[in-house]
This record gives sequence, structure tokens and C-alpha cells, in this order.
Amino acid sequence: MSIEPKLSELGEFGLISRISSHVENAVGVVTGIGDDAAVTALSPGMQLLTSTDMLLEEVHFRCSWHDPYRLGRKSLAASVSDIAAMGGIPRWALLSLAVPPTVSLEFLDAFTRGFLALAAEHGVALIGGDTCSSRHGLAISVTIMGEQEPGLIVRRSGARPGDDIWVTGTPGDAALALASLEKGAFPSPLAEEEREYLTSRLLDPTPRAAAGRALAEAGLVSAMIDVSDGLLADFGHIAEQSAVGGTIRLDAVPLSPAFCAAFPSHSPSRYDLALAGGEDYELVFTAPVANRGKIVQAMKKCGIDAAPVGIVTTLPGVTAVLADGSSHAPQNKGFNHFT
Amino acid sequence: MSIEPKLSELGEFGLISRISSHVENAVGVVTGIGDDAAVTALSPGMQLLTSTDMLLEEVHFRCSWHDPYRLGRKSLAASVSDIAAMGGIPRWALLSLAVPPTVSLEFLDAFTRGFLALAAEHGVALIGGDTCSSRHGLAISVTIMGEQEPGLIVRRSGARPGDDIWVTGTPGDAALALASLEKGAFPSPLAEEEREYLTSRLLDPTPRAAAGRALAEAGLVSAMIDVSDGLLADFGHIAEQSAVGGTIRLDAVPLSPAFCAAFPSHSPSRYDLALAGGEDYELVFTAPVANRGKIVQAMKKCGIDAAPVGIVTTLPGVTAVLADGSSHAPQNKGFNHFT
Repeated sequence: MSIEPKLSELGEFGLISRISSHVENAVGVVTGIGDDAAVTALSPGMQLLTSTDMLLEEVHFRCSWHDPYRLGRKSLAASVSDIAAMGGIPRWALLSLAVPPTVSLEFLDAFTRGFLALAAEHGVALIGGDTCSSRHGLAISVTIMGEQEPGLIVRRSGARPGDDIWVTGTPGDAALALASLEKGAFPSPLAEEEREYLTSRLLDPTPRAAAGRALAEAGLVSAMIDVSDGLLADFGHIAEQSAVGGTIRLDAVPLSPAFCAAFPSHSPSRYDLALAGGEDYELVFTAPVANRGKIVQAMKKCGIDAAPVGIVTTLPGVTAVLADGSSHAPQNKGFNHFT
Repeated sequence: MSIEPKLSELGEFGLISRISSHVENAVGVVTGIGDDAAVTALSPGMQLLTSTDMLLEEVHFRCSWHDPYRLGRKSLAASVSDIAAMGGIPRWALLSLAVPPTVSLEFLDAFTRGFLALAAEHGVALIGGDTCSSRHGLAISVTIMGEQEPGLIVRRSGARPGDDIWVTGTPGDAALALASLEKGAFPSPLAEEEREYLTSRLLDPTPRAAAGRALAEAGLVSAMIDVSDGLLADFGHIAEQSAVGGTIRLDAVPLSPAFCAAFPSHSPSRYDLALAGGEDYELVFTAPVANRGKIVQAMKKCGIDAAPVGIVTTLPGVTAVLADGSSHAPQNKGFNHFT
């Protein structure tokens, strides 16, 4: 017999207590959950980095695919990734939850465990938030705060013609998993282990916080962004804000073994998912060619791979080229809400 | 013939540009909208105050009552009020919007105008946010950041037995307006002007930012909170966190002329709305009796009234008493999601 209370018995303030009882204090937290506002102290000489993300059921996630523990992790991962893309140190998070009556307390407990587990992995403290009832689906809003020295913060606007274009990890995995889950089946050549790997890349992405910070603090990169809308679209943001263009060599884009196994034909369309799929939360950055060796070493220390995949050009526009030099335009231009 | 584009033509990035084109830079903003995270600099010696609020259509507001301009204002007002309750200086805001296909660009433009108008009135800069599509109703999430010197920040936990309990303005107006709109009619004695006053208190509340800051910076108050769940419930949070209790004299609670006109019978139940209704965004604070004169003067400078309405007690629990000393328990205990 379960003695777990229901959300309706617990109430709003009971839910907040239940969440905050699992929260540990951390760097710079003066007053955490429980007052009108949280109070934190930046480290001396640091500037504040802030980003916010909203995740809606049936728009950003489906509870039929996403177990609550990994949903909690991913809700924060997307935000940690934004701080990583600035080269910052993630510090504090606010979590708002609008909860429909169909959601159980067990679900919320697992969600919170996942959120706080990823927070602990990245040194992030939950310092506040908001809880309310929802009539239509779970809505999650996460705000993250980080910090970094002013001179080390990396923006989208610093890419210079001649710089290498780099990407961490293997883009496209999350997009392939999403396409497969939507279709109801993974490509048949894939083994169970490969399907699980790809699914995990979608449902439980690893934000590249240590890598982003290491690149910034070593002064190795000129511009950076995280891949949330697709490699081409996201490098496009760097290009636009740096007033440059770029050419990406498709045969240089690192693909995972599972991704490759799904496309045995080596058709150019395999690149569409790698170029236009979002939610990998890898980093795309630009850096002077002279830094290649140091970047590879720095990434090795962080336990991840990064590869130079193209060159920044003075000519505006972003082009993807095949091994024979012919250009390839992916059909999907990257995710864009409303269109 | 209208040449206004539709949201589906504008797209996610077009909407962001449209909003950010109206944003002016402000104190401490190093990099605003348009990168992975915003970059801001706290004033020297200040600590960071952070709060977040989520507002959902059909839960927190109805578009049939709430015009988009005032909805934009109120979305930020609730957050500014949280900074006011800490005695802080509001500085920067993040705005996330999940927009259903039924919402027009005109609606979003008016919403943005309202949000930015209230922001300008309080010296707040919009530095980032998130936009996405929604399948069920408009969802709004606002995060606000403010700052204050560590020694001046006012928490809920500082109330001491013997302190006065104060409230700014006239609580209950917003609750009366909400009850009337839900019922479909205002009480019949009310003139059109009074109905409009009450409606405006609900749909366009004025956060007491200058008052909260002035009280904190003059060191006049021991604890503070904003009235968002009702006077009794919100003072209850101060009492709990200060490990004290309190007695509120109902005949001392200031009521607006419009509110009084709605209850010609002087029945004790008139106080239920004043005590248990939320969304007034007035401030409740505690202060030593010796500070009475200075508090009245400080509030006068801010153009608002504040009244001592009770006393902090060592005995736990919050009691409301009528003029004859008999206790009165409101039927509605204040708003609580989920229950």
C-alpha cells in the first residue's frame, strides 16, 4: 500500500518544500529557495551570464518517449549548454513548473531527481522558481545564471575570415533519434545498442560545459554557439553576427558509428540530419588555424572530440560542400518555431 | 488593406528581432538579446536578486478580460514586485513566450509595448528570453534580476515580536475585481468609475518598487513580502520564516472607497477579499514601532500610503480580529495551486 501523498494533498507550498529539501547550497548562494527573490553573489571580477528556455509538452517533448528522470536532466542541460557556449561557468538555476492534474507526484519526484542530478554534475544550485497548475500539459521554464571574467566571455560575433569552423562530438544523432521516434521505428540495420545510444543522445544530451569553459579560458576560440537548431543554422548565427560567411566540408563532419550504420548507402541526404537537426547541444566554434593542436589537446582533457569542419569566409552565406567540391543544400533548414 | 505580416511569415527569429528592436540598453547591460546568454555587470558591492514567474492563459489570465497591453505590463509587474519585496533595485528581465497559432502579431506587439512600458517605468532592461509555439494557450515566463547592497536586502525572516505589521495601499481591490469578473457583474452600487478603478487594480497592478527600495535603503523594516496570495497568507510566510505569529486588526486595514462602496452592509465578510485575495502586489512589512513616523514620511515621498495594521507576536499563528476584539477567520485561506 502506497503512503505517497497526492499533489492535491501536498499543495503548492508542499511541492516547493519537497523539491527544496533535496537542494544543497553551493558557491555564491546567499539566500536560496523560499523568499521573494534569491540572493547570490558573483565571484569578484566576474560578469553575469543569463539564459532562459521554455519546454512544453507536445512541442518540445512527449511524456510517452521521455521518462521523467531524463526529462528533468534535459530541461537543465539545454540551459547549461547556453552558458557553455559563452565559455562561462554555470552557477545557479531557477525552475518553473506548470503541472496538469494528470501528472503524479512520482513523476515530479523523478523529474526533480534528474534535474538536480545534472545540476550537481555541473556545480549548479537550484535557487528558486515557480509552481502552478496547468490545464494543458506540463510546461517547464528554466533560467540559468553563470559567470565568467569579462575578457574571457566568447560571443557569436568574433569569427574572422580564415578561421577554422569546429564542432564537438557527432552532430545528427539527436535528430536521427527524433525522426525515428516520430516514425515509430529506427532504420532496420541498427542494433539495439545503437538505438539506445541514439535515443540517449536525444533524451539525455550532455552539455559541453567543461569544453566551452576550457576553450574560453585558454583564449583559443573567436566565436562560439551551441547546436540547438542544427549545425548549419547555428553556424549561420555566428556568420551573421560576425558579418562573415563559411564553407562546411561535409566529409569532415564527424558522424557516430550508430548514425553511419543507419545510412549504409552513403547518400548525401545522410548529411541533412547532421546539418539541419537540432538538440545535439554540441558546440560549434571558430578559431585561428594556429590553435588547432591546442584545441585538440584541450578537448582531449575534457574527454571529448572536436573536429575542424570548415573555413570562415569573407563572402556572406553558409555553404556545405561534398567531397568532390559540389555544394549540397539540405532540405530541412533547421528548426524554426511558428513557420 | 493591412500590410502587417503574420507570425507564420515572420518566424521565430523575426519575432525576436521585432521585440528586440524596441529594447533600449540600460545600466549594466554588456550584451543583451541575441547571443546564447546575456552578459550583465552588477554594480560594485551589490548582490544579485533573482525571481521568476510563470503566467498561463486560463490559469492566471483570460484574454477575454485582459487586453494584451495590460497583460504585458502585469507579466513584468509581478516580477518587479518580488524585487521590491527584497528592497532591491530592479535591473534586467528575461521574457519567454509560448504562442499558440491563434495569437496575432498585433496582440504580441501590444503585449510587448506593455511589457516594455512598465520596464521603462522601473528602469528594467529586457536582455533575453525564449519564444516557441504552443498548442494550448499563451504561456508567459518572466525572470527578473535586481541588485542591492548585502546589508540592505530585506528578507521574510527578520520580523521580531512587538514590531508593527504594515501594508501599503488598499488590499482587496484586485480580489474584488476578479470575483466580479468571474461572476460576470460588479456589485450594483458601484459606479462605472469605481468598476474601472477596481478592474485596473487587477489587470494593471502597480508594483511598489520605489517604496520597497526606500524602506530597505533607510533601514526601516525588519521583514517584507509582496501580497500575491493574500494579506493573511503572505504575512503567514513572514511569521513562519521569522518564527513568530501576528494579530491583524481588521478595522485598521485600509480599504479603497470603491471597495467600501461594494459592501454597504459593513459585514465582516467584506474582509475576506481584503485578507485572502491575491494579486494586489502591495507590500506587507514589519518594523519597530519607533520607525512609524519615518515610514509614513518615506511612503509619502513615494506617493503612496501605508498603514500599521497589526502586531508581531511571540505566539505562533496569524489571527485577524474585529474592532470588538473577536477573531475572524476568512473562509478563503489565500490562493494555493493544486489544492
